[in-house]
Amino acid sequence: MKVLSPMDAVWMYVDGPQTPMHVASLCIYSLPEGAPEGWLQGLIEKLRSHREFTAPYNLKLASPRLKSVLPTWVEAEDIDLDYHFRHSALAKPGGERELGVLISRLHSHPMDLSQPLWEVHVIEGLEGNRFAIYTKIHHSLVDGVGGIRLLIKALSADPDAREVVAPWSVGTRRSGPLPARQHAASLSKLWSGVKDRTTAMPGVAKSFASMARDAVLRAPDVALPFATPRSLLNGPVSAQRRFATQHYTLPRVKAVARAAGVTVNDVFLGLSAAALRRYLGELGALPERPLTAGVPVSVRPKGDEATANAISFIFANLNTHIEDPVARLRAIGESTRLAKERLQDLPRSGIADYTSMLMTPYILQVFSGLGGHMRPVFNLTISNVPGPDRPLYLCGARLEHLYPVSVLLHGQALNITSASYAGQFNIGFTGCRKTLPHMQRLAVFTGEALEELERSLRLGAKAPLEARAVAEQR
Amino acid sequence: MKVLSPMDAVWMYVDGPQTPMHVASLCIYSLPEGAPEGWLQGLIEKLRSHREFTAPYNLKLASPRLKSVLPTWVEAEDIDLDYHFRHSALAKPGGERELGVLISRLHSHPMDLSQPLWEVHVIEGLEGNRFAIYTKIHHSLVDGVGGIRLLIKALSADPDAREVVAPWSVGTRRSGPLPARQHAASLSKLWSGVKDRTTAMPGVAKSFASMARDAVLRAPDVALPFATPRSLLNGPVSAQRRFATQHYTLPRVKAVARAAGVTVNDVFLGLSAAALRRYLGELGALPERPLTAGVPVSVRPKGDEATANAISFIFANLNTHIEDPVARLRAIGESTRLAKERLQDLPRSGIADYTSMLMTPYILQVFSGLGGHMRPVFNLTISNVPGPDRPLYLCGARLEHLYPVSVLLHGQALNITSASYAGQFNIGFTGCRKTLPHMQRLAVFTGEALEELERSLRLGAKAPLEARAVAEQR
Repeated sequence: MKVLSPMDAVWMYVDGPQTPMHVASLCIYSLPEGAPEGWLQGLIEKLRSHREFTAPYNLKLASPRLKSVLPTWVEAEDIDLDYHFRHSALAKPGGERELGVLISRLHSHPMDLSQPLWEVHVIEGLEGNRFAIYTKIHHSLVDGVGGIRLLIKALSADPDAREVVAPWSVGTRRSGPLPARQHAASLSKLWSGVKDRTTAMPGVAKSFASMARDAVLRAPDVALPFATPRSLLNGPVSAQRRFATQHYTLPRVKAVARAAGVTVNDVFLGLSAAALRRYLGELGALPERPLTAGVPVSVRPKGDEATANAISFIFANLNTHIEDPVARLRAIGESTRLAKERLQDLPRSGIADYTSMLMTPYILQVFSGLGGHMRPVFNLTISNVPGPDRPLYLCGARLEHLYPVSVLLHGQALNITSASYAGQFNIGFTGCRKTLPHMQRLAVFTGEALEELERSLRLGAKAPLEARAVAEQR
Repeated sequence: MKVLSPMDAVWMYVDGPQTPMHVASLCIYSLPEGAPEGWLQGLIEKLRSHREFTAPYNLKLASPRLKSVLPTWVEAEDIDLDYHFRHSALAKPGGERELGVLISRLHSHPMDLSQPLWEVHVIEGLEGNRFAIYTKIHHSLVDGVGGIRLLIKALSADPDAREVVAPWSVGTRRSGPLPARQHAASLSKLWSGVKDRTTAMPGVAKSFASMARDAVLRAPDVALPFATPRSLLNGPVSAQRRFATQHYTLPRVKAVARAAGVTVNDVFLGLSAAALRRYLGELGALPERPLTAGVPVSVRPKGDEATANAISFIFANLNTHIEDPVARLRAIGESTRLAKERLQDLPRSGIADYTSMLMTPYILQVFSGLGGHMRPVFNLTISNVPGPDRPLYLCGARLEHLYPVSVLLHGQALNITSASYAGQFNIGFTGCRKTLPHMQRLAVFTGEALEELERSLRLGAKAPLEARAVAEQR
């Protein structure tokens, strides 16, 4: 029996019928060369033979009814593997479109809160001798960095390794083959035992609110995000999702960062900004004032092997009012530089308060039923999760792409999250089906935005243009 | 804007996270002879081109939040067909097992109550040149007879007809090619405009309770069902489902009915009783007192083309304490004969009160959070829905089997519903995944129970034993 820490519990408070708080990864694998007919079925059977469940896969809510009052984990007994581990198939022709339809649908299904909060779906029928694994887990159990860690523990850097480790059996102690790099590592030093320093309690909403008030009094300039403009991204969201993907080679992104004098993360924000400017512009819905993004940063101490939540936020001004792409990118870089300085200036013990304060509007929205009707804190979340550097294999099947599928909140109808992997930069767009018609355009525009930056910065297109992986439910 | 009638609204009151109130049909079709590659994809595209939505497919709740207070239908605008009409595929080898797994999973997914409350899933990859269509609709929109009516309106009795009518475009006015026979037609005369005579209101739970009290005072013997024994079927249910199927030829069932001097429906109850006796016996969980079944009977007036709810109940004593199968079957026949007499003795205006009274315990359970902890009204629902007599075709594809997939309530972890069709008797078993391990055994035992009755009644097994279609999620 373990009461959730406030940073884990917050995902339970905001979990609701339209805003289920599960995150997921979509991994695309290619079959090993010369794999015989039935290879995938064999893999599934090997995985299914693993019946040991290690944390967090063995945890469930003690009482789903009390999830918003006193969320508590207990170890589940009699875990029904066939409920959690599922085998699906794509409709023909099994292309990116069909995959996008299925992922959109799987990600729209709420989880049964009376079960351990995870699902692993093996998906056959993907064209080009490939298959996919969609892994869903509640955000109160993992954050992005923790999720990637869990994922890679079941994989091997050795293409010839044939050992099969089920994701639910990997445990949290043993390190993965390639530890994930520390994201925003410079921030980790700020994190000094404030986690778990308070315990969740029935009056938690009230205490969050008072923490937020304190934080604002102590650091009035952090109120800046509340100046964010309203946009179509910031209404109530529906329960249905769309999912689309895009990917680049990491060297292309790095070359743009170098040439413009910004970070890789700034380029990612710049590409998202360009795509949003164009997408909203075409709908006649681009706000005059610039859009802002909340950018989660990990505050996990170095050497912390845990997978639970250790996240704070910085704010990025997306400068969507600037027409010139390079000037826009540099302005974004300046904005994130200032935001990081501001976060580092906060007293150590203030990080948790600051983070709580940012979540407070969502918690209050949930309790008051105001979801999506309040002024947005920021217009959308754009998150960059570092993944493994080198290629990984599942029983000889190469992991080709790794896409994050994320959460939405009322007032946050779009989430753009990237994951680097083996020289690639993969982006997952998770959106509200109702709010974002033709969301695949965002993915297409993001791809074209990189080409535009390369042209403006006079970078030779040395790398051939990749095929675009655009998958989305119509 | 239309306030739901009490008989429709009751399904909204009892709808909850563990007890979503959708019903479904599973139709198995064989491809037309010589159908070219891509035939099914062509059918899907033709269906998708139909963008007219007729009642009840165009209705949605005015406010899902008020569903238990004042449920009201409004006509939906901008219906998102790609949300409602879905294309899925079976994992290999695409047998009955894989189909059962998928149907169990689809039927476990709750509906998004902010959308029109239906889904149509075309499922490819079923072995033997077949495909399936799973159609899900909220019980507050249709009852069993209404559901079958809607279904057959999109089909043709002519194998050469190539007209494609989408289920959501058929309307409720035009008759189907073969009207469903009136189920329990003798009861229909009892139904005289009591429907819609009261309107739903916020105090509905209270008024139901007082109607129930009146009914008990007027007809004390109807309290009989409350003497039902507790059994493992009568605890709280989980949100997850299992689904299994069985089918016979109708002549076999009729021969047993004739030989034993009972009705076809009694034979169905007898087969269910035999299977339950054996299943619970093997688990050491057969109650000493006989199990009872609630048997929905249609009270739809002849000529009423509506599809909304017109259901009352009779009680059948399943006589599971009797070992001899023929004696057990005859005792069941005697029990249903008495129950029908009792229902016919009720004053005309009493039918709705009587029905409401039977639902009252469930409604009170929902409002009081007592679900599954009260004494059961009956141990399970066993329902027989008459389907079309002659073979039907969808654009030349023959409908081979038609299985009902039904609802569970807290305290009702199993539902057995049959549908007759073109000389067949098809049975769908819908169960709570947690309560009923190895539920496919019930389907197998039901098959063996018919063979046992045939032997005991010395009926020559003229018909060859059919292949058993047993599909269930492991």
